[in-house]
Amino acid sequence: MGPHPAVAAIRLAVRRELHDVLNRLAHDEHPPAAGEPPLVLVACSGGADSMALASALAFEARKLSVRAGAVTVDHGLQPGSDLRAAEVAQRLTAMGLAPVEAVAVSVGRAGGPEAAARDARYAALDEAAGRLGAVAVLLGHTRDDQAETVLLGLARGSGIRSLSGMAAVTGAAGRYRRPFLQLDRQTARKACLVQSLPVWDDPMNADPAYTRSRLRHEGLPALEKSLGKGVVEALARTARLCRDDADALDAWAAEADASVRDGDGLLECAKLYALPPAVRRRVLRRAAVAEGSPAGSLFARHIEEMDRLITGWRGQGAINLPGRVVARRQGGRLVIRQG
Amino acid sequence: MGPHPAVAAIRLAVRRELHDVLNRLAHDEHPPAAGEPPLVLVACSGGADSMALASALAFEARKLSVRAGAVTVDHGLQPGSDLRAAEVAQRLTAMGLAPVEAVAVSVGRAGGPEAAARDARYAALDEAAGRLGAVAVLLGHTRDDQAETVLLGLARGSGIRSLSGMAAVTGAAGRYRRPFLQLDRQTARKACLVQSLPVWDDPMNADPAYTRSRLRHEGLPALEKSLGKGVVEALARTARLCRDDADALDAWAAEADASVRDGDGLLECAKLYALPPAVRRRVLRRAAVAEGSPAGSLFARHIEEMDRLITGWRGQGAINLPGRVVARRQGGRLVIRQG
Repeated sequence: MGPHPAVAAIRLAVRRELHDVLNRLAHDEHPPAAGEPPLVLVACSGGADSMALASALAFEARKLSVRAGAVTVDHGLQPGSDLRAAEVAQRLTAMGLAPVEAVAVSVGRAGGPEAAARDARYAALDEAAGRLGAVAVLLGHTRDDQAETVLLGLARGSGIRSLSGMAAVTGAAGRYRRPFLQLDRQTARKACLVQSLPVWDDPMNADPAYTRSRLRHEGLPALEKSLGKGVVEALARTARLCRDDADALDAWAAEADASVRDGDGLLECAKLYALPPAVRRRVLRRAAVAEGSPAGSLFARHIEEMDRLITGWRGQGAINLPGRVVARRQGGRLVIRQG
Repeated sequence: MGPHPAVAAIRLAVRRELHDVLNRLAHDEHPPAAGEPPLVLVACSGGADSMALASALAFEARKLSVRAGAVTVDHGLQPGSDLRAAEVAQRLTAMGLAPVEAVAVSVGRAGGPEAAARDARYAALDEAAGRLGAVAVLLGHTRDDQAETVLLGLARGSGIRSLSGMAAVTGAAGRYRRPFLQLDRQTARKACLVQSLPVWDDPMNADPAYTRSRLRHEGLPALEKSLGKGVVEALARTARLCRDDADALDAWAAEADASVRDGDGLLECAKLYALPPAVRRRVLRRAAVAEGSPAGSLFARHIEEMDRLITGWRGQGAINLPGRVVARRQGGRLVIRQG
């Protein structure tokens, strides 16, 4: 008798990911020195998704020439979080993972509580992966997390890049990987249940003070009730399609950029005007970022205002952009400079 | 003392639209024969949005060289709908609109009740506009309708074309126009209230049997509660951005199409492989539609399966597409034919 379908599903997802990791290593120009098999880490909070991921990694790594380790991050946001992290590390060790590390971080405030915790977490994972020489770090994000991320992006209304959610493979040299991005949360929970893995539900995930938590427990279920059960899958597919679309349009804009500049490297308004609006707006965004406007503070309305210097020119004045960058039209050229 | 802000807002939206209509007419190669001023129609259900639109059209047309008329469509879906249509027509006439027509249609079943009603309605509007020689037909869709349309498209998960909602200007020669697409529903309601315009709330709009109605009364409010009040605006902006992005990528695909075919006009797999995935998928979709696969039945999963003939070739067999179209890989070519 084979494993429970949920366990089979999580193992298959991890097996495919490991094959891809090994495949990339085999084609790497600078392969790691021979000797120990390559190390793959799992980032594990102790929640159902990442515990399921850890269990599948422990199982599959034994069948391949891969060492499997784990890192759990103690964000220090709740009393006793250090004990909790130690307990998670113990469970990971019991699964047969080695090395296992519990890393304490201190969470700042920049960008809000969720962003600050994420920044601290990735910094710790980066450090651990580098120090331990890991070739990959697996993350437990599921299709449900992806659907929530797409809706959070939708709320920004800033276009398809923010609809493209989380990448399946990301980071330098494709270090971070999300094997469960096409798997639903319910399958991960079920896999923990049937394997008798104790899981920890982070109270932050249920705290209505957090946007993602409200979305998970109220927004998305209401949307499913209105639109039908396929919404999560549709959102995840939307993310994949939007990511490819955004990549293609960014590539077009990078190519168009050179063709719309004069001998002095200034943007020519007439040539910008001739571009498709979607490409023109991306050229404008690139130009503003290149002059020092922070990408994260540059909103659709800023780009629209710049665009009107090209498409709705009636002598309007200079436009102030984030990061003290100023855009003005001057002699048929769009001049973007630190102000 | 000027008009109430809500009335000022609806009039401004209509004034801008009429200026654009007249501007296009002035640049038209085949302007209508001189004589009567051009006729602009409003499509009016008797609901708040289109009653507000009719009132603004009546007011603004008097100040411009434009005749303002109206059409109300009786879908015959409720008992007494003919009396209701006659009453709406009477109110429109009382506003000073002329001609005013109440047109009865018979709603079929194709595509579900909402699509069938919409098809019958547009056929009637097309016929009336043609017969009366109207240069434009104004539709009362608001930013809220647009937000709902984007979410309905999101639920299909079929990419950015279905996220692009309703166009501000559409139909042959830009006949249909939506002046309220950036105006919220609340403003239209308020404008009716302060002008003492009686409005009719279509019971279909509140009937939870309809997806759009569930979305309006449950899904979207829950999403706003989770994500904040700006969701409707963000969705409407997403629609505009996605429309431009989809147009640009379609143009790219149309151009790429010619460059990936051999002397016999067959698609060369190696050249398809070299395209960005977003462009390749659009080339594949175009090719399937050109062979007779109905665009509306061709889903993302069909395109993904075709794409695997290019990017994941391992000798798989022919793929059946809607409309009895078959795609197969043969001698380095992708052959798409009626099967």
